[in-house]
Amino acid sequence: MAKYFLGIDIGGTKIASGLVSAEGKLKKSIILPTLAERGKNVSLNQLFISIDMLLKTGGVSKKDIKGIGVCAPGPLNPQKRIIYNPPNLQGWVKVPLGDLVEERLKIKTKVENDANAAGVAEMLWGSAKGYKNIFYVTVSTGIGTGIIIDGKLYHGKNGMAGEGGHVTISYNDETVLCACGSKGCIEALASGPNTVKRFLKNISRGPEGESLTVNMTKNGAADITMKTIADAAKRGDSLAIKTIQEEGRFLGIWLGNMINILDPEIIVIGGGVSLIGNLLFKEIKDTVKKHTINIFASKTPIVAAKLKKNVGVFGAAAIAMI
Amino acid sequence: MAKYFLGIDIGGTKIASGLVSAEGKLKKSIILPTLAERGKNVSLNQLFISIDMLLKTGGVSKKDIKGIGVCAPGPLNPQKRIIYNPPNLQGWVKVPLGDLVEERLKIKTKVENDANAAGVAEMLWGSAKGYKNIFYVTVSTGIGTGIIIDGKLYHGKNGMAGEGGHVTISYNDETVLCACGSKGCIEALASGPNTVKRFLKNISRGPEGESLTVNMTKNGAADITMKTIADAAKRGDSLAIKTIQEEGRFLGIWLGNMINILDPEIIVIGGGVSLIGNLLFKEIKDTVKKHTINIFASKTPIVAAKLKKNVGVFGAAAIAMI
Repeated sequence: MAKYFLGIDIGGTKIASGLVSAEGKLKKSIILPTLAERGKNVSLNQLFISIDMLLKTGGVSKKDIKGIGVCAPGPLNPQKRIIYNPPNLQGWVKVPLGDLVEERLKIKTKVENDANAAGVAEMLWGSAKGYKNIFYVTVSTGIGTGIIIDGKLYHGKNGMAGEGGHVTISYNDETVLCACGSKGCIEALASGPNTVKRFLKNISRGPEGESLTVNMTKNGAADITMKTIADAAKRGDSLAIKTIQEEGRFLGIWLGNMINILDPEIIVIGGGVSLIGNLLFKEIKDTVKKHTINIFASKTPIVAAKLKKNVGVFGAAAIAMI
Repeated sequence: MAKYFLGIDIGGTKIASGLVSAEGKLKKSIILPTLAERGKNVSLNQLFISIDMLLKTGGVSKKDIKGIGVCAPGPLNPQKRIIYNPPNLQGWVKVPLGDLVEERLKIKTKVENDANAAGVAEMLWGSAKGYKNIFYVTVSTGIGTGIIIDGKLYHGKNGMAGEGGHVTISYNDETVLCACGSKGCIEALASGPNTVKRFLKNISRGPEGESLTVNMTKNGAADITMKTIADAAKRGDSLAIKTIQEEGRFLGIWLGNMINILDPEIIVIGGGVSLIGNLLFKEIKDTVKKHTINIFASKTPIVAAKLKKNVGVFGAAAIAMI
């Protein structure tokens, strides 16, 4: 009897894959380089090598695999299982990834974007267990979102729904240009790297700049990451605290918008930035209450994701399961 | 055999009701004053009088009615059929309207907010006929939205989903305060009255103020409405044109957001402001394309609503039908 779901998370630099049980236990995982710079055929081959290696080292045969899930960078269409042309996967243009994997492995394969998949993993095995209407957010290098309605991912007409990171809350702010071409997208305001940038700008601005952080890294300001800022905040650094609170306010205003539109049962926030913990979450929750007309919004739980390490693999396995 | 759906649209000043066939023909409609200022019992009684009068003057009996739909101002919960405490219905606090109507008439009754209901009417009988995934917008005194997924209204956890009018696209703009308490909500930027306000501000600002509009109304600036501005634009008035284009840009940026989140099959825009026509719609469409990362968004139809007069009654009847 098939016992595992095989999850594969393709990134621009590495391919992480793993065998996950229906109960959400990770039996075995491996990581290979994507070798994206060598083009589509090489990186696609890395994916197949991953699967072979995983089965071999995991000591399981194909008949033990109940389904395969693949997460890839967007734009992609989960319904058609096509990857369009992700900026970090060179030469991938309209790749029918689902068909390719399914033909080769003869195992049912699903394709999904990472944030959507991570949301499903949180529903099955994480902080949203027991919920069926979920707004999932990941805040790390970028900001991604996934919408789950009645236990199913909501994809929209072209499979492109749930791109909440590119909702602008400050459409005419010339100082907040987003990679997507718009201004004031929440990703441009509150992603990890953009928060670090804002922090560095404030450091260089004089009195506020007396921050612990510069003494916490080897090369001073150049080495500062969200982790540094979070650590400095825990040690009482006022600029670090202010920066995180500001990020919380941005996220709170944006989530107030999302509640007005979607009225979800629960909001789960994952990604590296969510590890900051209470300082960030308190600000988010306080701000949400002030930025929604939903009279029940104060009761909508806003919680940290449970799955942290290997969330990509769990997400990919999760979409194979639903 | 039951032949009609009875739709009732309760507003702060009037109650409009009508008999609508499954094909969307309005057999008979009447309007009574709500008498909201006299409190809940009086206005509720007006609603029942409406129904009685409608049946009598329409020459139909209760057994001819297949279902009743009631639209009311929010906040309300369509699933529980409860009206919470609309600012313009005095004394209505947690009124179980669905139960009250159903008990009295012994006919299945649904309760819905106006924008949601109008969206359903557009799906059944209007511009969205044949579509099942619809983002409906009404731009008039306020901005309301309705989300239809797979042919059904999307309500969210507390029945409060689809409040797209209170999505901010300019969270820190002190000059754009919304009635909801936030800043920069699309309603505060682009509703009819708020667009008129912006226009009047520009008139008073000097050279741009040389607008035809002041000569088009009886009492000058004080009488200017969206209709005046639209008429002036048609006659080539540059400030009027600019004002409408600006409104289109606001709506386009906001709809770009909505497409990023919801990826609908079609966007239908109703309400008085939508009557402006091409000048507004061209600007909306051009702007949407620049403000979405959805690579298919340029193919998403953005169209004017078909149902104009009696849309409230059609909406209410429509929700009784689905």
